[in-house]
Amino acid sequence: MSLEQVIKQIKPLDQKIIEATQAHLDSLTKPQGSLGMLEDIGKQVAAIYGSVKPPLTKKKVVIMAGDHGVAAEGVSAYPPEVTPQMVLNYMNGGAGINVMANHAGASLICVDVGVAVDLPDLPNLIRKKIAYGTKNMTQGPAMTREEAEKALLIGVETVEQLSKEGITLLAPGDMGIANTTSSAAIIAALGNVPVEQVVGRGTGINDERYKRKIEAVRKALAVNKPDSNDSLDVLAKVGGLEIAGMAGLMIGAAVYGMPVVIDGFNATAAALIAGTLAPLSRAYMIGSHLSAEPGHKFMLEYLGIKPMLTMNLRLGEATGAVLVMSMVDCAIKILREMATFEDAGVSVALT
Amino acid sequence: MSLEQVIKQIKPLDQKIIEATQAHLDSLTKPQGSLGMLEDIGKQVAAIYGSVKPPLTKKKVVIMAGDHGVAAEGVSAYPPEVTPQMVLNYMNGGAGINVMANHAGASLICVDVGVAVDLPDLPNLIRKKIAYGTKNMTQGPAMTREEAEKALLIGVETVEQLSKEGITLLAPGDMGIANTTSSAAIIAALGNVPVEQVVGRGTGINDERYKRKIEAVRKALAVNKPDSNDSLDVLAKVGGLEIAGMAGLMIGAAVYGMPVVIDGFNATAAALIAGTLAPLSRAYMIGSHLSAEPGHKFMLEYLGIKPMLTMNLRLGEATGAVLVMSMVDCAIKILREMATFEDAGVSVALT
Repeated sequence: MSLEQVIKQIKPLDQKIIEATQAHLDSLTKPQGSLGMLEDIGKQVAAIYGSVKPPLTKKKVVIMAGDHGVAAEGVSAYPPEVTPQMVLNYMNGGAGINVMANHAGASLICVDVGVAVDLPDLPNLIRKKIAYGTKNMTQGPAMTREEAEKALLIGVETVEQLSKEGITLLAPGDMGIANTTSSAAIIAALGNVPVEQVVGRGTGINDERYKRKIEAVRKALAVNKPDSNDSLDVLAKVGGLEIAGMAGLMIGAAVYGMPVVIDGFNATAAALIAGTLAPLSRAYMIGSHLSAEPGHKFMLEYLGIKPMLTMNLRLGEATGAVLVMSMVDCAIKILREMATFEDAGVSVALT
Repeated sequence: MSLEQVIKQIKPLDQKIIEATQAHLDSLTKPQGSLGMLEDIGKQVAAIYGSVKPPLTKKKVVIMAGDHGVAAEGVSAYPPEVTPQMVLNYMNGGAGINVMANHAGASLICVDVGVAVDLPDLPNLIRKKIAYGTKNMTQGPAMTREEAEKALLIGVETVEQLSKEGITLLAPGDMGIANTTSSAAIIAALGNVPVEQVVGRGTGINDERYKRKIEAVRKALAVNKPDSNDSLDVLAKVGGLEIAGMAGLMIGAAVYGMPVVIDGFNATAAALIAGTLAPLSRAYMIGSHLSAEPGHKFMLEYLGIKPMLTMNLRLGEATGAVLVMSMVDCAIKILREMATFEDAGVSVALT
């Protein structure tokens, strides 16, 4: 199926279930609306799952991994070989996301869509390499339009498979040295935002690397002239294979009817691609944290996604998203387990 | 023991363990500092528990319940009989905090320090009633200085007992119709802040009740003239028995060496009392959410507590705090379970 055909399958949320869930929430022993965004999540997931009292979630973290040609410009604090090293760290359970996913009750897989070296055959590693990293976007397009579409479809197919396995809640994560440079270029191009407003310190770079990073984004935009009205053009020219893969996961989540928690800066750049290619997919997205990266706030507002956490997280890997995965279950339990005013014999509000 | 003697027992945090924990965090496979406030929590609880790799927590929610004479001024959307009705709802497991505490793996007790009616003998209800509610603070002091101190000591003794039972992480919650009126008066008095800046809509009151609430706080301050340099005077004159009980829990947490997660508006008013009576107790406090109530932000800044969640919560009952209890365990697991750069064979940052 083509990407266009896939996107056409996305259904808008059922407003009747949202209204019924609101009525149920208002009958529970709490002041109306007092559980704030937990109530919003409750209504959203009720509508996605088609039930006012939905079942608890089965959670999966999917880390998309890919390398970036622009790393050659010296824009990151880490060398590119860290990408495969971290993939192996995920497979061995030693990374931040492993610990935090376990804590949230989520299992984890990693998809190689574009790591620059060959990776071994491992149980939770899906090998779908499209290229050995993107090309250096300061010298030309990072990838072809066909490669970008292929990476998007790998994301969609991954969700199709997970859906068959019973997964109902998704958190896309990213691994790719130099990818905040690519994400900054995506925002600058799609949102017509000045480069210096969206480039941040990433994993923690010094002043010299920071200047190089701004310069690399400027050059990539000048050389490639991505069309701000064509997300696929922006993605291909200044994006990344793992960013495309994450965007595909988000579109896939909407197609296969599961909420998807949006992590930080890179995941939100992917959400910007998914949300512009497939506007209906936005209704399936749940915000997580407001990252320390500038430009993140801009993207979240553009997408209409409200972050719940402000914790200065800037690790990526879906580490912010898994904290919110647990809150999705909490929101569901509120719908399923709280007593109503009538049940509990509690007086309702005076007027 | 007198309150003064209790407070003298609080020890400052061990800076050497904080430094050792920082060094350990910096050896883990992530950019330095990239887990933001989870790293801050890690260092704080490591210092409190006296170990760089502390054990997972045993969690308790303690809801302090008490009525407020000022409810007679029509400042709340709910009638005072809701206080005992909600206590029974907690005992039956039907309230928001029951569902959310279960989700976080925390058990729950409720302490009656001042509910206006007699409550039955129930397993998780500790009956330590000091008075049948406070007096109406618009006409004179809400309680005597002795009553306020007694309620504080009940909080401390509750933690002593919980500590013996092996509890290591505390979330104080509040139940008391009209208590945001009392909390607003505490902030206005202790922080010398204009009344209209700290009075909010509480459980959701209309314009008429909102005007009455502002008027009640103004009158209480004018009639009682609480001394802004004497927290116990402020607490007695315009506070509440359950707010005093919560402040006692926070002081007790510091005395018995356990972190305490600070919930929303009312819990933070209690933290303001605890943190001014016993400045060393602040080091044991962990922030949770930024509530929809105005005045909350002011108090958190005054105490130097950073909230992590912005979710428009305004239920009280420690519902925001339990969401963070789970993050405390997550921060501990990061310290205990993540691989180091050396273990994982991952290259460290370039300069």
